Order: sequence, then C-alpha cells, then structure tokens
Amino acid sequence: MLRLAELFNSIADDLEEGARIFRDELRSEQPFIRDLCEHIERFHGKQLRPALVLLTGQACGGARPEHRVLAAVVEMVHLATLVHDDVLDEADIRRRSATVSRQWGNESAVLLGDFLFSHAFRLCSSLDDQFASQLIGRTAVTLCSGEMMQVSNCDNHDLTEAEYFEIIKGKTAALIGTCCLLGARYADADERAVRRMNEFGVGLGTAFQIIDDLLDLIGDEREVGKSLGRDVDKGKLTLPLIHYLRTCTSPRRKEMLALLRGDNARRDGQIAALLADSDSLEYARQTAHKHVRNSLDILAELPPTEARTSLTAMAEFIVARRQ
Amino acid sequence: MLRLAELFNSIADDLEEGARIFRDELRSEQPFIRDLCEHIERFHGKQLRPALVLLTGQACGGARPEHRVLAAVVEMVHLATLVHDDVLDEADIRRRSATVSRQWGNESAVLLGDFLFSHAFRLCSSLDDQFASQLIGRTAVTLCSGEMMQVSNCDNHDLTEAEYFEIIKGKTAALIGTCCLLGARYADADERAVRRMNEFGVGLGTAFQIIDDLLDLIGDEREVGKSLGRDVDKGKLTLPLIHYLRTCTSPRRKEMLALLRGDNARRDGQIAALLADSDSLEYARQTAHKHVRNSLDILAELPPTEARTSLTAMAEFIVARRQ
Repeated sequence: MLRLAELFNSIADDLEEGARIFRDELRSEQPFIRDLCEHIERFHGKQLRPALVLLTGQACGGARPEHRVLAAVVEMVHLATLVHDDVLDEADIRRRSATVSRQWGNESAVLLGDFLFSHAFRLCSSLDDQFASQLIGRTAVTLCSGEMMQVSNCDNHDLTEAEYFEIIKGKTAALIGTCCLLGARYADADERAVRRMNEFGVGLGTAFQIIDDLLDLIGDEREVGKSLGRDVDKGKLTLPLIHYLRTCTSPRRKEMLALLRGDNARRDGQIAALLADSDSLEYARQTAHKHVRNSLDILAELPPTEARTSLTAMAEFIVARRQ
Repeated sequence: MLRLAELFNSIADDLEEGARIFRDELRSEQPFIRDLCEHIERFHGKQLRPALVLLTGQACGGARPEHRVLAAVVEMVHLATLVHDDVLDEADIRRRSATVSRQWGNESAVLLGDFLFSHAFRLCSSLDDQFASQLIGRTAVTLCSGEMMQVSNCDNHDLTEAEYFEIIKGKTAALIGTCCLLGARYADADERAVRRMNEFGVGLGTAFQIIDDLLDLIGDEREVGKSLGRDVDKGKLTLPLIHYLRTCTSPRRKEMLALLRGDNARRDGQIAALLADSDSLEYARQTAHKHVRNSLDILAELPPTEARTSLTAMAEFIVARRQ
C-alpha cells in the first residue's frame, strides 16, 4: 500500500523546517505545557495540510520561507480542532495514543486546543503582510460554523445531502482549501490560479471527509487507528446513511431508523450489514471520486512538475485509502 | 454604591459602536449560532475591557475607529475564555444566567468559545497594521499559559505567592494590560506612555483578580451573581489561603489543610471562619490596594482629562467592589 510520506520527497526539507518552526513556536518554560505538547507530537500523523501548503507552493512557482511558517500554522489549527474534537467526542483512541482529554482531563484538553489556536494566530501575524492572518481567521470561523451546524443537527435523521455537504465543507474542506490557496498565493501565482488551487483543495477535502465518514461506518479499528462508529453514537448522519434512508424500501428505512435510535451493542455491525446490502457505500465512494476527479482536472492546468505529480498521487491516495 | 457604567459617560457612544461591531461580526445565517450568540450577550456584564481600550485611548490623545474595533476584539477574547472556563469549572451560574455548557452541552460551549476566538482574530486582522494581531495573538498565548499553570497546580497546597502572581498575571492581568496598551498605542502615544499604560493595566488586572479570588472565598452568591467557593472545590489556592497557610500556627495549618482536602458540605463556611479569624483577608485586600496605588501613580503622569478621571475612579472601584 502506498504511503503518503513517499509523496513528500520533494518537500522533505521544507516539511522538516516547518516541523522545527512548529516546535519552536510551542516551546514553553512550563513542564506541564511541555508534556502536553510532546504528547500531541504523536498526533501529527499524515501531515496532509503542511504538505499541501508546500506542494502547491512548489507547483505554483516555488516554496518560500513563508510557506514553511504557514505549514506550521495550518498544522496547529488542525491539531487544535483535533484536541477539541476529542473533548466533544469522548473518543478513546486517537492515532493509537490516549487522547489528551482522557489522560489529563477535559480542562487540559480545552486549554491545549486554545493554546494551539493562539499560537497559530500569533505565528501567522508574524508574517510581513496581513493576508494569511485574515484568511486563517476567516477559515477558523468557517471551521467552527461547520462543527456547530453538525452539533445542531445531532439526531436529525432527515439531514439532506446538501446540508451534509455544507457541514463537511465547513469542518474539513475549508481548511484544506485554505492550505492550497496559501501555497499558491505565497508563490505569487496569479489571481485565477490562486482561486483554482483553492477549489482543488476544497474538492480534495470534501473527498477526504466522505472517505473518513465511510471508514467510521465500515472501517477496521486497528487499521484506522482511532475509535470508529462514533458518528452513529453521536447521532451524526453521514453520506452513506443519508443515501440509504432516501433510497431504501419503507420497511428497511424503519429498520435502519430503529437501529440509529436504539443503543444495542451490536448496532454497528447491523448497520454495516444493511449498508453492505445496498448501493449506498458505493454511492458515497463514487461521490468522493467525482470530487477528486474535479480536483485532478484543476491540477492538469498547472505546468508538469514533481510537485504536481505528488499532488496527483495524493488526490488518488485519498479516495483509495483504508485508513 | 457606585456603578461602573456611570464612569463610562465620555465613551458611551464609542462603547455602543463597539457593541454594534461585536454583533455585526458574530452575525450568522445559522439559527443555532444566533441562539448561542444571543445568549452570551447577557454575559457582557461590566464591559471592563472595551471601556479600558476606549478610556486609555481618550486619555492618551483621543479614541479613533481602531479603538472601537479593538473594543469588540478584547470583549470577544474575554467572552471566549469565560465560555471555556464554564466548561472547565462546571459552573452553574454565570451572571444569573444558565451557562452555555449547562444549557447546550460541553460540545457547544467548546465550539462557541472557539468561534469567539476565531472572530476576535479575524476582526483584529481587518485593521490596517499587524500590531494588534500580533499583540492579541501573544496575549492569547499568555492567557492559556496562565490557565494551564493553574490547572497543573491543582491541589498543590504549597503554591507560593510568586507562583500565584504568575498565574493571575497570565490569566487576567495580561489581557487587561493589553487593553490599555492598545488604547495608548492606537492614540499614537509615545513608546514610554504605551509601556506605562500597559503597566497601569497589569496592576489593575492583578488587583481585580485578587479581589475576585477574595470574593470567591467570602462573597455573597446573590450579590456576586455567580457560583462561589469554586476555587476551593477545584483545588485552586488563592492569596488569602496562601498567606494563611504560611503564617498561621501549626495546628491551624493542619486544620485548614484537612478542610481543603476534605469535601464536607459546610467546608466553605468553616474555611471562611478560619480566615476571618486571621489577618489573611486583610493582607490580600492590602496587596490589591498596593497594585492599584501603583496604577494610580501611572495615571498621574497623564494630562488631566475626563477619561483620566474615569480611569482613576475605575481603579478605586475595583478594590472597593463587593461584586
């Protein structure tokens, strides 16, 4: 199986430098803060967002010092939302490590998330121009709005596909779009290219979240490395279930709704079985593919470079991944 | 009893304009977000921080459009920390209203705090120069660090006075100092005056927090309008107790430590009685007075204006307040 890290050869040094800026920014005199920050180093995981800033920068003319700073910024924003998500979701496992909230309590997790957010904004405002600060501020607002829309639709079994897409655009795709926009803009790409790279990222992020939601329903906990079935537990309807409830027969719909409203221990398996017996999983996968194809079309507008090849492989990886 | 609002006559229009900017910034299409934002309007309370931006601006040469934007920014940062504090402290009452976490769950409270933080940064980055963004970013980091230091010293009955001051400087005084610094700086005050106004605010904020902690120990819940005795419940040692444990006799120390470590329902009254029988409450009050006196000395360096008179009265109010 292809590993994402293999696509990052052309940006290996920049990624390393971004990680150094990340660590330097979070350095603290306080042993407690040092412990927490050491712990979250383990969450870094795929480094998808920093890689996108750097690769789109390279693909649009070349990565500069600003790209490395912004790589650290977007990773901080992302980790802040992960840490706060863990408070929300009472998740037990995150990347095979204990979550911050489980190990140090909700108090520490809320503060650590705020600490990461604050550092992201501070670091961003250290750049010469306001552009990144303004965009990161706006993107953070969009992120929160998406999450809040999700919370307010908890247990709403009539959630429409349009509403689902609005939620995932806010909570996931907006930040990924911003990564690509920043990459292009700080490489001095022209206005149209900057807008297109944002669209590339939004498509990629949308596909990424659809697959993430699919894995939460039918993935293997050991492979994925985090608690699964959380969306159903928290009353969050995702694309396969939205499609299923809209297209299945009336008795099946009743059966599925009863499972979603109930709380029996074998529920996850029963929901997965109903889905496997329908074309809803395939529908979700095809929808993700459609978004990725659109993103690949945008990439084709760029001159051929190693960075563009990596972005292409990354987009293909995202719909093929099992974790 | 003097009410703070009476000191704000000279800035009434600017405060109103700041409140309008605040509401406009948080405007949302989502009914759920609108409900939450309407709810937090009730927390506004004293408007201490916006008033400080505007009054120091006036006292240092005149308030400008930037001051009104920054008044909204500092209130957003403050409310974000209040909303997140309510998650942390499981507080039941905040300004005689239900807390966000109690009414809508921890999930919503965490997201609403993030939403307020994000809007504060976004609004700040809309100013022409980076100065405020950089300072607000740095101040938010200091705020989180202070809160984290407090959490990491939970149940530490050997907390020193120096450590206590480091905590309250971070969690309270830094933001109040920043309000005054911004007020002076955006009124084009010279470098020394900007630095002095920051010191003024840090002193004021330190006194404010000492009195807040005192009221948590011995205040009247109906007068103060929020849950009291929370610090002891959460294992947070504040100035009167630090002084008491350092200066009392050995048997009294044992008695106090047993109360702090225990959990009997009448504990608050027993702790208050021990403190009332010592000079520790007076010590804390005198320490607050000392900080306010230093702040008043700094004000005396400014030319006499209505704004300076209001700042003086505000400083005196802070150590005299019973709520």
